Amino acid sequence: MYGKDRIYKKVEIIGVSSKGIEAAIETAVTKARTSLDKLSWFEVKDIRGHIGDDGKIAEYQVLLKVAFQLKE
Amino acid sequence: MYGKDRIYKKVEIIGVSSKGIEAAIETAVTKARTSLDKLSWFEVKDIRGHIGDDGKIAEYQVLLKVAFQLKE
Amino acid sequence: MYGKDRIYKKVEIIGVSSKGIEAAIETAVTKARTSLDKLSWFEVKDIRGHIGDDGKIAEYQVLLKVAFQLKE
Amino acid sequence: MYGKDRIYKKVEIIGVSSKGIEAAIETAVTKARTSLDKLSWFEVKDIRGHIGDDGKIAEYQVLLKVAFQLKE
Amino acid sequence: MYGKDRIYKKVEIIGVSSKGIEAAIETAVTKARTSLDKLSWFEVKDIRGHIGDDGKIAEYQVLLKVAFQLKE
Amino acid sequence: MYGKDRIYKKVEIIGVSSKGIEAAIETAVTKARTSLDKLSWFEVKDIRGHIGDDGKIAEYQVLLKVAFQLKE
Amino acid sequence: MYGKDRIYKKVEIIGVSSKGIEAAIETAVTKARTSLDKLSWFEVKDIRGHIGDDGKIAEYQVLLKVAFQLKE
Amino acid sequence: MYGKDRIYKKVEIIGVSSKGIEAAIETAVTKARTSLDKLSWFEVKDIRGHIGDDGKIAEYQVLLKVAFQLKE
Amino acid sequence: MYGKDRIYKKVEIIGVSSKGIEAAIETAVTKARTSLDKLSWFEVKDIRGHIGDDGKIAEYQVLLKVAFQLKE
Amino acid sequence: MYGKDRIYKKVEIIGVSSKGIEAAIETAVTKARTSLDKLSWFEVKDIRGHIGDDGKIAEYQVLLKVAFQLKE
Amino acid sequence: MYGKDRIYKKVEIIGVSSKGIEAAIETAVTKARTSLDKLSWFEVKDIRGHIGDDGKIAEYQVLLKVAFQLKE
Amino acid sequence: MYGKDRIYKKVEIIGVSSKGIEAAIETAVTKARTSLDKLSWFEVKDIRGHIGDDGKIAEYQVLLKVAFQLKE
Repeated sequence: MYGKDRIYKKVEIIGVSSKGIEAAIETAVTKARTSLDKLSWFEVKDIRGHIGDDGKIAEYQVLLKVAFQLKE
Repeated sequence: MYGKDRIYKKVEIIGVSSKGIEAAIETAVTKARTSLDKLSWFEVKDIRGHIGDDGKIAEYQVLLKVAFQLKE
Repeated sequence: MYGKDRIYKKVEIIGVSSKGIEAAIETAVTKARTSLDKLSWFEVKDIRGHIGDDGKIAEYQVLLKVAFQLKE
Repeated sequence: MYGKDRIYKKVEIIGVSSKGIEAAIETAVTKARTSLDKLSWFEVKDIRGHIGDDGKIAEYQVLLKVAFQLKE
Repeated sequence: MYGKDRIYKKVEIIGVSSKGIEAAIETAVTKARTSLDKLSWFEVKDIRGHIGDDGKIAEYQVLLKVAFQLKE
Repeated sequence: MYGKDRIYKKVEIIGVSSKGIEAAIETAVTKARTSLDKLSWFEVKDIRGHIGDDGKIAEYQVLLKVAFQLKE
Repeated sequence: MYGKDRIYKKVEIIGVSSKGIEAAIETAVTKARTSLDKLSWFEVKDIRGHIGDDGKIAEYQVLLKVAFQLKE
Repeated sequence: MYGKDRIYKKVEIIGVSSKGIEAAIETAVTKARTSLDKLSWFEVKDIRGHIGDDGKIAEYQVLLKVAFQLKE
Repeated sequence: MYGKDRIYKKVEIIGVSSKGIEAAIETAVTKARTSLDKLSWFEVKDIRGHIGDDGKIAEYQVLLKVAFQLKE
Repeated sequence: MYGKDRIYKKVEIIGVSSKGIEAAIETAVTKARTSLDKLSWFEVKDIRGHIGDDGKIAEYQVLLKVAFQLKE
Repeated sequence: MYGKDRIYKKVEIIGVSSKGIEAAIETAVTKARTSLDKLSWFEVKDIRGHIGDDGKIAEYQVLLKVAFQLKE
Repeated sequence: MYGKDRIYKKVEIIGVSSKGIEAAIETAVTKARTSLDKLSWFEVKDIRGHIGDDGKIAEYQVLLKVAFQLKE
């Protein structure tokens, strides 16, 4: 494929999961697939989380850039 | 809502207004609502402006990231 | 046009070309036109490339932000 | 005062107001005064906001660093 | 809660654990609760680690910003 | 004008005003006009302020880059 | 050891694993040990990943800086 | 020359050309020479461009820092 | 100590001295010790200074992050 | 290849050429091949240049990160 | 002086000295005074140096931003 | 030398000294010379230090990038 003219698009999505960082990334990639074309790669841009009233981590929020090739 | 698997999308828009910084943000948020789903929050990423031939500020241009939850 | 309320959107695309940096930018701008509204300007955010098995540069990959005005 | 050995401390606070950016800064500075020593200056580090269910800006959130001189 | 004047404070803490990244975040959040007010959210700012004499990862060190609302 | 060879210069100035952020920007743009050529645009790079002995914001200090076309 | 003149070198390596972020870091640290001197610490600089044709995460790619003391 | 006390000044200029990135840099360096002292080096800080109504790149805009030695 | 669960806190302080950069760092570390727990390390984040009416450097101002272990 | 445990190394090299930016990148990639293993990709991190006594651009200097897979 | 409308300008200069970092800063401040108005403060932006053929540090090069108030 | 095709390599080293910042830089440059080719220049990227049990600065740690020309 290398060497051929083509373009990719990158969009920012935030995946949320109570289970951990990889689970939040998987949530984002799985759900994004339904509204975007076939994804090629992701880049983690930010990791945050919410702390509940009980002082425990209620969820992880991971900001990703995901990229996919645009059809001509 | 915390703790539930979900994803958000963030997009970059520039709001322009001659009235000031908050007015430019409001322009962006109001107009973006017509083409995007319900917005949740915004982040100011850049503040610029154009200076007219009379040497006065003709308009403020505010680059925002706005986020909204993607439906499954 | 200055002074009038309006909004722009910015999206990230990667243009790829074996010919050089300007060619990769032109690939991105030309192909993006088919799926996006009339583009106004671009900003180069990253320049990368793939090196082939022969040790030569197989392609240039240029990450752009392109901006276009949103119709009301 | 210049030339004399002394130290300052900087802390991060977020001021929130529904009225605008300067109002959020003033909220932060006014309320911080009750728990911190006399403040000397502030630096704006981030400007965000929440968008309500009606699509309007519900509040501005401004992240500041505020500095104050430590007594010996 | 949105729309009401209020302030938050953010502090930097480093959580350390031999078990992994999420465990180091949990260490930080759990222990910070004893000396700080009720925490609201955290942001991961840096991930590092120590490598032991046996060449294995001895511990993960995660730098967080944690935020909590200041009482008036 | 687009497409014609030309150059712009950018300089950094700080505008100060007790009235607010937009007022500080206007101070900078108005006063800069007397010593620089016709200005074209500005970019906000930093927002700071001084806090007086009474604990109120004494002034806003806004660091701008302003740009103007150089005559040949 | 503190207080003694000495130097460290830092190099950038990317560890790849299908199992997760910590596994990719361990891959990098374990394999780097065979070509570099005894490692002291690592810093995570970037987290990325590849998404397979089935829309699942095929692998995690973690960019590390690893440091080791140079012998005199 | 190394080892001798001296100072340099750096200024920001934007060169514009329809021909490409190097042409925009050369425009900036050539024209800057007429109003500034002998230039020593340049650093590319930003690459942008305007897209015309026909969807083609109308011009490249390259932001440079150029440095020159100040005479005593 | 490595491998044991623990947390550190980092705070920002500015040390000021008319004598030079190291002296400003020492001022900060020495005075901070009276109000903070035992310090472990520091990181220089910014170096600034004031220039007096006689055109000479009146003082160096060094922004540090200092870290110390939190007791459980 | 995706999914298999492996590591890459990234090193920083500066390519210099009087002919232009792509030529400087090619100089770096071609010469680096003789002392490093088979290169996989490059990333442009900085573009600079020297200006000769005649006020023309004497050479382009391009800082690259180049990556190559480490053999086990 | 606080609270009064006014503007400052910031320029970038590089001071060079074989004696050390503070000496390079003093060179820059002293020499800049002859061509610029009364300086108010400086900020260190970069510290570099040249290494001679004998492997020793031939000179320190310190990039400063210096600020001065513009007269109306 | 300017205008001739050539490449440089940059590596990251940390110099440590109890005497101060310049001493730590000299330690790094002197010791690096024994394992690397003739060095050309250095860039300071980070300044840190360790604080001893007595609350005094035990050592300065300076992260440098050093550059040297690669022979063909």
